[in-house]
Amino acid sequence: MTVLILTTEEDVTADMVVVHLHACAVPVVRLDPADLTGGAALSGEYVHGAFRGHLSSGGRLVSLDGLRSVWVRRPGIPASRAARPSPWLTEESAQALYGMLRSSGARWMNDPDAAHRARHKPWQLRHAQSCGLPVPATLITTFPQAAREFADRYPDLVVKPVSGAHPQDPPRAVPTSRVSPDADFAAVAFGPTLLQRRVAKRADIRLTVVGERLLAARKPVAADAHPDEVDVRFASTTAPWEPAEVPPRIAESVRAYMRGAELAYGAFDFVEDADGTWWFLECNQSGQFGFIEVDTGQPIARTIAEWLSRPVAPRPTRLNGANSAVS
Amino acid sequence: MTVLILTTEEDVTADMVVVHLHACAVPVVRLDPADLTGGAALSGEYVHGAFRGHLSSGGRLVSLDGLRSVWVRRPGIPASRAARPSPWLTEESAQALYGMLRSSGARWMNDPDAAHRARHKPWQLRHAQSCGLPVPATLITTFPQAAREFADRYPDLVVKPVSGAHPQDPPRAVPTSRVSPDADFAAVAFGPTLLQRRVAKRADIRLTVVGERLLAARKPVAADAHPDEVDVRFASTTAPWEPAEVPPRIAESVRAYMRGAELAYGAFDFVEDADGTWWFLECNQSGQFGFIEVDTGQPIARTIAEWLSRPVAPRPTRLNGANSAVS
Repeated sequence: MTVLILTTEEDVTADMVVVHLHACAVPVVRLDPADLTGGAALSGEYVHGAFRGHLSSGGRLVSLDGLRSVWVRRPGIPASRAARPSPWLTEESAQALYGMLRSSGARWMNDPDAAHRARHKPWQLRHAQSCGLPVPATLITTFPQAAREFADRYPDLVVKPVSGAHPQDPPRAVPTSRVSPDADFAAVAFGPTLLQRRVAKRADIRLTVVGERLLAARKPVAADAHPDEVDVRFASTTAPWEPAEVPPRIAESVRAYMRGAELAYGAFDFVEDADGTWWFLECNQSGQFGFIEVDTGQPIARTIAEWLSRPVAPRPTRLNGANSAVS
Repeated sequence: MTVLILTTEEDVTADMVVVHLHACAVPVVRLDPADLTGGAALSGEYVHGAFRGHLSSGGRLVSLDGLRSVWVRRPGIPASRAARPSPWLTEESAQALYGMLRSSGARWMNDPDAAHRARHKPWQLRHAQSCGLPVPATLITTFPQAAREFADRYPDLVVKPVSGAHPQDPPRAVPTSRVSPDADFAAVAFGPTLLQRRVAKRADIRLTVVGERLLAARKPVAADAHPDEVDVRFASTTAPWEPAEVPPRIAESVRAYMRGAELAYGAFDFVEDADGTWWFLECNQSGQFGFIEVDTGQPIARTIAEWLSRPVAPRPTRLNGANSAVS
């Protein structure tokens, strides 16, 4: 049984996992959807109530029945490297590839529909609350008056994007920034704005979840850090990430989050306040982990490889298994 | 409790349903996501473990807690009518709106993630097979040799798009066409191609499903129809659609399909052969129904209105209901 990795050709994070899969002699096929219909090809046949499908990539042919798992790492845009790319060819290729893979029975890291839902920050915040995770007071609004009233109640605020990275090419991370006390919020009317109470933090926490396994890392805030340095991705500190224990209540809530979100992989960002409380900021279902593994030595890549290698569970019995159809 | 309809301003199909909602005195709010952040606005606040959200559209304000259902009819692209539209504003607005709606607890017709999955034709074909629906022999491939072998086994074929409408502006329906006997299939290598055994049909069937209710319509093929007229959308017949009985086995399979697909609405296309067998072609989760209602007098719009009007079911108890978070 083969592990299928959907990613671009150059992807050192995928390489880290592939090393472990090779060490366990698990067959791996890498496929970049961008290579449809050049270096990658597909075929699926629906006859006599049954389906037989195949993928080919880099000269290797794999049966869809023979897939144990699919890792959606960093796939390119389908058919974007075709000889004559077009929106139509991209759409046809996306539907063909992901449509067939969706009915393959393989386990997903992560299921594409669950992943799509889990990207929505407003959904994340509500889901985190429901799972009992502490969430800093947050407002997402296009009403300037709502923003002003929120700022009256929570004078120390940060602003961040609702959606994540700016869609330029290459995508640009938009830093979380502190809101100045004299902000007038009139511009809120021109686009949804996410305001959040700034947590006075003593550390950043990255909690990587792979299946049932939780791997937490912690980076203390430098003693001389300026309070405007709210975004760890852009902070000046050079301190490394260090392994951390997960408080049992957080572990329970995070597992409930993963189950409810139907995710196999998630990278949670928390901030730790002076009382030691972990405040949920977000869960990135495709978050990077290489920098954490390098700093902490935590076996994230190996854990992912183990998850991907597990045998496929027996398929559930269909409600209506009789295939009377002939053709 | 309010019904929220996401659609463009001019939508006579939505109007047909709104008439029935008004007749039952059910409050309705129409919102076109394209109107963010002009005629439409949103706000959501996450404080003390709870969420309070509001939408405003056309001067009306509605609480997200007060929504009983959301009908995703024909929503515009978020913020596309903003004063200064941009891909970034569209992404921020989409995430804000659909992210909040996803956690509102309202019933969806259809749930956006289920709808996305259900659009994939390869997934549809496999799901239909699994539910026991007869599916004509079908091949989706980028291998010319696979296409040639399939054509040897099934010499009478049609070709159709994998994905549906061509993404030009306005979108263009691509007709299903007969494959000529001397086709050489070399071009299959340049894009996924869907080939399907042509069913010699005596009628087209449109089966509209609204919740548990099945409404079937049938249009007989004209006696003098040319066998090349395979696509009912482009056929020359002027015969009206007429109400039809659903064979019990088909009804059972279709209900299994809807449950498995997690859809509340679906428009199934079948063709009926000389033996009376209904062959599954596709299930369009947002298929039009106005033309069927006009021809047959079937109460599709009223049935949709009734489904949308049903009270919200009590929310399931959370695995982890304790909201310890304060902010």
